Amino acid sequence: MKPIVTILSTGSELTAGRSIDTNSGWIAVQLGELGWKVNRFVVMPDDPRIILSELKALQLQAKENPDVPSLVIMTGGLGATEDDYTLQCALELSGQKMVINEKANIRLKSLYAARGKSYTDILPTVMRQIHYPENSYVLENGSGLAVGFVLNLSENAYLACMPGVPTEMKDMYKKRLLPFLKRTFEKGELYQKNRWIWGIGESLFQAEFISKQKDLLDAGMEWGVTAQKGFIKAIFQAEREDLVDQAIARLKDAYPNQNTEDVFSFLHETLRLNKQTISVAESCTGGLLGGKITDVPGSSAYFLGGHLVYSNEQKINLLGVSADLIGKFGAVSEEVCKAMLVGLEKSIPSDFQLAITGIAGPEGGSEDKPVGTIWIGRKRKGSDPEAFLYQMPGNREMVRESAVNTALYLLSKLLK
Amino acid sequence: MKPIVTILSTGSELTAGRSIDTNSGWIAVQLGELGWKVNRFVVMPDDPRIILSELKALQLQAKENPDVPSLVIMTGGLGATEDDYTLQCALELSGQKMVINEKANIRLKSLYAARGKSYTDILPTVMRQIHYPENSYVLENGSGLAVGFVLNLSENAYLACMPGVPTEMKDMYKKRLLPFLKRTFEKGELYQKNRWIWGIGESLFQAEFISKQKDLLDAGMEWGVTAQKGFIKAIFQAEREDLVDQAIARLKDAYPNQNTEDVFSFLHETLRLNKQTISVAESCTGGLLGGKITDVPGSSAYFLGGHLVYSNEQKINLLGVSADLIGKFGAVSEEVCKAMLVGLEKSIPSDFQLAITGIAGPEGGSEDKPVGTIWIGRKRKGSDPEAFLYQMPGNREMVRESAVNTALYLLSKLLK
Repeated sequence: MKPIVTILSTGSELTAGRSIDTNSGWIAVQLGELGWKVNRFVVMPDDPRIILSELKALQLQAKENPDVPSLVIMTGGLGATEDDYTLQCALELSGQKMVINEKANIRLKSLYAARGKSYTDILPTVMRQIHYPENSYVLENGSGLAVGFVLNLSENAYLACMPGVPTEMKDMYKKRLLPFLKRTFEKGELYQKNRWIWGIGESLFQAEFISKQKDLLDAGMEWGVTAQKGFIKAIFQAEREDLVDQAIARLKDAYPNQNTEDVFSFLHETLRLNKQTISVAESCTGGLLGGKITDVPGSSAYFLGGHLVYSNEQKINLLGVSADLIGKFGAVSEEVCKAMLVGLEKSIPSDFQLAITGIAGPEGGSEDKPVGTIWIGRKRKGSDPEAFLYQMPGNREMVRESAVNTALYLLSKLLK
Repeated sequence: MKPIVTILSTGSELTAGRSIDTNSGWIAVQLGELGWKVNRFVVMPDDPRIILSELKALQLQAKENPDVPSLVIMTGGLGATEDDYTLQCALELSGQKMVINEKANIRLKSLYAARGKSYTDILPTVMRQIHYPENSYVLENGSGLAVGFVLNLSENAYLACMPGVPTEMKDMYKKRLLPFLKRTFEKGELYQKNRWIWGIGESLFQAEFISKQKDLLDAGMEWGVTAQKGFIKAIFQAEREDLVDQAIARLKDAYPNQNTEDVFSFLHETLRLNKQTISVAESCTGGLLGGKITDVPGSSAYFLGGHLVYSNEQKINLLGVSADLIGKFGAVSEEVCKAMLVGLEKSIPSDFQLAITGIAGPEGGSEDKPVGTIWIGRKRKGSDPEAFLYQMPGNREMVRESAVNTALYLLSKLLK
């Protein structure tokens, strides 16, 4: 039976707005794969009174509803500094005493020995990290020192505590907590698929597609949409595989020319496999396209390089675009975009070329070419250049990211 | 008197982990400037039962502590879709009826008229957006339709509701809610300064600097640190100006060669003022440096362009780096970094040149040159090239961002 889920995180840097809680969202996505929904995220400062009062309220709620299974997942506050209070709060809540985890103790001793220090040098706050409440279920830490644990809050309610360091938490979740959760709250297998749709917003998709899937939704399918820059990602989930497959088939039908799988991994795999190379010429994106391509480790197999031609001078100087052409049509035009591609191929002989020129704003727009006007060009070695016009919505950042993503989408269609 | 603050946000996309709540952190930073601390963030799905039960608990708490002022700020759920429940919950909580905001009504009518639609076409959910609970304080929306409001929860407790769209919320906070908050919870003036420190981590800074400022902290100064990529930002805050100034003076003393103001705005202002130009040559950052520079509107005044030389071939082809030099010292070397600068100046004659070559990982490291080894070069037109070696910590993303920020830091020192 699916539990009622609350996700807690602690850290004064979070409630002061100095850092953003990304752990809770990550955990929610993992739980979503089990088909579980989260009732609330609560973010608290490193203040034991606030933490304990929240935990006590959740425990009371669980005790008052003994038939409904519930789960609280908490991250943070298990470290070695003075403002880590999670263990202390868990002990007070459960009335248990703390016990040492021998495996972690051995790791800690050898760590100190390796640094030429003796066991007696270890600070009490460091020692606290390898303790957990007696009678709780230990979550071993595969990448750090702090031990996690799962406490019984009441008959049918659990509190899982994990470190706040994202790498340690994610590793602990996957290897330790997830198997525990599956065993404890048996679940039906969930089937999930997703699809990217280009050049459409979340609300339009909801109005013109989702609203027509009443039969699938009534039969138990769930859906979600993530708005990205330039595309949306639609996710379908159900216990019945056929419902999800039906939804995907209808989606392909409704958006025949603008639905794709994950374009970024497709490009990476295909270019590597085909041993083909690419290069870029960027004006308004100023390097973001090259930056996005090289975000991926191993992109050196196909990304040769490119030109940043932010100024007209450099379009002329580096790509050999003629000054007359720029004068006649403007730097943001089909003609200049195509000339950028031709010049790029001459300068860097790659198998495919991409070029972007546009008006990212907030200044520089006109009636003819408002902010968001973007020409994106693509070319295959030896073929004619092609250029496509877009009107990208949003602010400077959104326009630039949409342009970058859309350029990679156009390349992926050429590679198909 | 400072209120006890809770920040709520609603949105099923948040609790499903499909998007991240950035509004709460932004509001916490604003409140931090008033010297107010936040007790909890709570993130909830678009579920009126969950929202109402949270609001009722907060109202009860406020009623039980009538002497302590309290403030709840809530974002989201004021839109025009069926899963927007904030107004409904506020009405139920307060027992007020809803009334129309005439200003917003006039805007909505003219919007519909402009689209050639009549007033009667307006959907009820759209109409709901321009309503608010009677006897509440209206927060007008300067950039969107949905009206915000502040309700009395009890004698000394307020609930402020704003839209979840970040641009609308931020505008409404600054222009409407902030003046209300200042009037309602009179505060002592707070004095604040910050400083950037390069090449040092948060914990070392805390251990070697903050720990020695006990006198200032005891006298009432508060501090904070934000870890960035390549630098940290230290923030000092107090009602007494002299405490903050003292802290800044000591910081400059402790880190004489690595403390700066905001390097990114300094560069933008200085280059514009001096009418000087820059260009870049990027290897492992693949365009991120150009991308960062052109994030700033108006950067076309000084950023001419650059070369992405991700492959060795293109270092030779575009920058004229000699193949022998790469063979002898490797692409990640002082020699190649300097040769990139010299080639860049020849190709793009700007006043200043920046170059980056390094190993971003996760592959490509060796014993001599482990992952994170980065050479960053800077050059002034006609002067000798300089190159600086860094060992950047963290994963690929962190290494690349640190390299980009550090390159801009090195340029700012050259401009001083």
